[in-house]
Amino acid sequence: MAKADKTTGKTGGKTGETKADRLKARVPRGFADRGPGELAAAERMLAAIREVYELYGFEAVETPLVEYTDALGKFLPDEDRPNEGVFSFQDEDEQWLSLRYDLTAPLARYVSENFEALPKPYRSYRSGWVLRNEKPGPGRFRQFMQFDADTVGAASAAADAEICMMAADTLDRLGLAGQYVVKVNNRKVLDGVMEAIGLSGEAEAGRRLTVLRAVDKLDKVGVAGVRDLLGAGRMDPSGDFTKGAGLSAEQAERVIAFSEAKRETLEATFAALEAVVAGSEKGLAGVAELREIAALVEAGDYAERVQIDPSVVRGLEYYTGPVFEAELTFPVTNEDGVPVRFGSIGGGGRYDGLVGRFRAEPVPATGFSIGVSRLLSALRLVNSPILAQAEPQAPVIVLVMDRDRVADYQRLVATLRGAGVRAEMYLGSAGMKAQMKYADRRRSPCVIIQGSDERERGEVQIKDLIEGAKASTEIETHEEWKAARPAQFSVPVEGMVEAVREVLARHR
Amino acid sequence: MAKADKTTGKTGGKTGETKADRLKARVPRGFADRGPGELAAAERMLAAIREVYELYGFEAVETPLVEYTDALGKFLPDEDRPNEGVFSFQDEDEQWLSLRYDLTAPLARYVSENFEALPKPYRSYRSGWVLRNEKPGPGRFRQFMQFDADTVGAASAAADAEICMMAADTLDRLGLAGQYVVKVNNRKVLDGVMEAIGLSGEAEAGRRLTVLRAVDKLDKVGVAGVRDLLGAGRMDPSGDFTKGAGLSAEQAERVIAFSEAKRETLEATFAALEAVVAGSEKGLAGVAELREIAALVEAGDYAERVQIDPSVVRGLEYYTGPVFEAELTFPVTNEDGVPVRFGSIGGGGRYDGLVGRFRAEPVPATGFSIGVSRLLSALRLVNSPILAQAEPQAPVIVLVMDRDRVADYQRLVATLRGAGVRAEMYLGSAGMKAQMKYADRRRSPCVIIQGSDERERGEVQIKDLIEGAKASTEIETHEEWKAARPAQFSVPVEGMVEAVREVLARHR
Repeated sequence: MAKADKTTGKTGGKTGETKADRLKARVPRGFADRGPGELAAAERMLAAIREVYELYGFEAVETPLVEYTDALGKFLPDEDRPNEGVFSFQDEDEQWLSLRYDLTAPLARYVSENFEALPKPYRSYRSGWVLRNEKPGPGRFRQFMQFDADTVGAASAAADAEICMMAADTLDRLGLAGQYVVKVNNRKVLDGVMEAIGLSGEAEAGRRLTVLRAVDKLDKVGVAGVRDLLGAGRMDPSGDFTKGAGLSAEQAERVIAFSEAKRETLEATFAALEAVVAGSEKGLAGVAELREIAALVEAGDYAERVQIDPSVVRGLEYYTGPVFEAELTFPVTNEDGVPVRFGSIGGGGRYDGLVGRFRAEPVPATGFSIGVSRLLSALRLVNSPILAQAEPQAPVIVLVMDRDRVADYQRLVATLRGAGVRAEMYLGSAGMKAQMKYADRRRSPCVIIQGSDERERGEVQIKDLIEGAKASTEIETHEEWKAARPAQFSVPVEGMVEAVREVLARHR
Repeated sequence: MAKADKTTGKTGGKTGETKADRLKARVPRGFADRGPGELAAAERMLAAIREVYELYGFEAVETPLVEYTDALGKFLPDEDRPNEGVFSFQDEDEQWLSLRYDLTAPLARYVSENFEALPKPYRSYRSGWVLRNEKPGPGRFRQFMQFDADTVGAASAAADAEICMMAADTLDRLGLAGQYVVKVNNRKVLDGVMEAIGLSGEAEAGRRLTVLRAVDKLDKVGVAGVRDLLGAGRMDPSGDFTKGAGLSAEQAERVIAFSEAKRETLEATFAALEAVVAGSEKGLAGVAELREIAALVEAGDYAERVQIDPSVVRGLEYYTGPVFEAELTFPVTNEDGVPVRFGSIGGGGRYDGLVGRFRAEPVPATGFSIGVSRLLSALRLVNSPILAQAEPQAPVIVLVMDRDRVADYQRLVATLRGAGVRAEMYLGSAGMKAQMKYADRRRSPCVIIQGSDERERGEVQIKDLIEGAKASTEIETHEEWKAARPAQFSVPVEGMVEAVREVLARHR
């Protein structure tokens, strides 16, 4: 492994230590912490996705964060530093290990390693962290979560159509009905265009990838931008120059005609695609697959939600047939204040060569990957019912009025918990005022107070913090105050659980 | 970052390729894949733990997999290669990054970074993967999951007692009632022993750690082994020699007297501990804290489940006060065929210095960490009800009898899913026999068959695979066969959902 700096590991907090000596607490660039609200929301969203995938007969599987580097390959999307996009380190036995950068390459490894034991077709789903050593930027993280579903061992268009319809069902289930479209295209059609313009063969693989990534930028840079990227190259507004694919104007127009082949009707779109790949057997086969997928989608009544759209190509090198992109259509405002579509929250496609890298025979496979945090922000924007009440009820706080009676307070808390009420005893060393402030900070619905007077009477005081806060801001007259429900009241200890439940019910 | 090997990334499956050229699919040494059964069981267990922790008012938080190396420090337990136990790599800006090796050091960083915004005491829980670059071995993984709960900003014994009682409640909730003990000791008592034998001061820090780790091995190597490790050193059965702490016989006996100070009654144990730390203020303070914890545990009626036990020290350097170890007491057979206690599934303690490394003032903290996969295997061994039916019902399979009618089969599947029945259409290219074999492999409760005859009559055939398998092994005579429920029957398409539900109900 790469050796860590031996000078680290100092301990702080010692006498005579200066501020400069102290370690600085900071999360590394491009990484993030997550709090309870975000975690609860993500958990609800992931559970809903799992539910749909389970209903479709997909089963869970999980691979580790680390793989042998050679097993992962280098299939990073549109990457300025493709050789450095992966976190890697050398093992004791000199073999290179890498942190996974997606969930597809590890699945290919898993299926190959367990090929005989798995049912085929093998339908599986998995969610987990992936890591990319990219330059961190606003909203661009080096650790993020993906949620993938894949069918391995099925060559048919029915498998591709099913993945797309499942993606649609998932988005419906998440409260996004009517606000998305799953777009379908076929890499073979693009390959057909490449053939037609003389860009086939191993020697042109690099240029084909450049063409692919140029078309994939249509959304970001527009047709003029793509034309530049297909030709000599493009200068972006910041002055960065990206070298182009070096196509002639005629070649570039044919590629653009492909990506703009969408017409009013499906039949017209297919006709336009057939024209653009004229003469290429592979291209025509691609259009035929699209026809098959469209027919199944239509038969399943998903034609509004799953649409053929030749502008989609996906930036990844390993796709071999149909490719998918799920796009949210509702408007958001971009950083320049311009309303734009929310855009892609995931995509996928057929990758018939990836498992075959490990085996004598090719193994067909198709899948779909969701960008979890991007989908989660979309659910927030549309106020998805999936996220309603995602955060658990804040705890009831039992105040510590008398440090010698901690065991008594502990018993009160245990009684509440025993009744299923989320509760805690204040564990700090501060006084009454700071304890009330703590309860506010925890957004507690109420606190339990037992001083010596209450204890002697066998009572506790319950202070309803939500009612109390309301009362202090809303109530203006003495009459209103009297008419309002009391924000603080005493009950016998035996009645505490019931009284607390009433307070909780009031604020649910 | 450490650069990956540039020679990798070859693609396979090409003509003329030999077997030697192909990539070998293998999970890296010390890492593991997980299938649906294990994932579902783990998910149920984690949900139950979360439920208890939530009830106690702890809230979820999550930190990334990667931290700055200096922020993590080097607090690895009992490690043959302490400087190499962490996976590390250098960032573009030359700073060293490491994969987290536990969840405590990252929590300390998180709390320091967000100190003003967090309520204090700050009660939080988190589960996640940690990675250690240890030599992999049987049952020893380089990636494993921990589930931690911590209270930061509470110096009182009540916080320690609460963590222990919560651990007990968790194990009860998981179906382990009566089969565990949470052991409590105090590092200050051991420090008192060190003082008493002249091992205090910075210069002796290394030797103190060696003593600590020797005592921590009591379970594994017995008293004689610990005596060797405290003295000149110990040769293990494989011939590996571990250098000892170099204590005199007298010094070693005092340490051993400490670890064996447990007596029949609590009071006798405390008296024995007080004798062993006689003369050390710190040691006596440690015993006083143990008394306080024991009183709270007693008051909460946990005395059977949470016990003072001076044999527990925990191998981690950063503990500063009470330490805990949750041990499962039921017997298992070890690799030599000898029955032993199942042993530790987690532990923790007070680490008042860890957050303070980042701050001017010390910040008290206490916590408990569960080893998730070890606890999961324990639940399996005791057949915990938490794990019952953890795996989802296997899917109903709709067979494809006629490739031209895929859209029709797709509609049948959609009808089943619409009714909440887990179902899938066979997506492979094989014939009827292979499809039945696939359904068996998926452990499907039943398959749906519609050939041209059934379609003409508006019917489907339902074949009950569980009943069918039973029939073929159990039924011996023709009469029995006739009396048995039919394993295959026809229903009108409109009755399919109801009939499938009946089959599922029969096998639940």
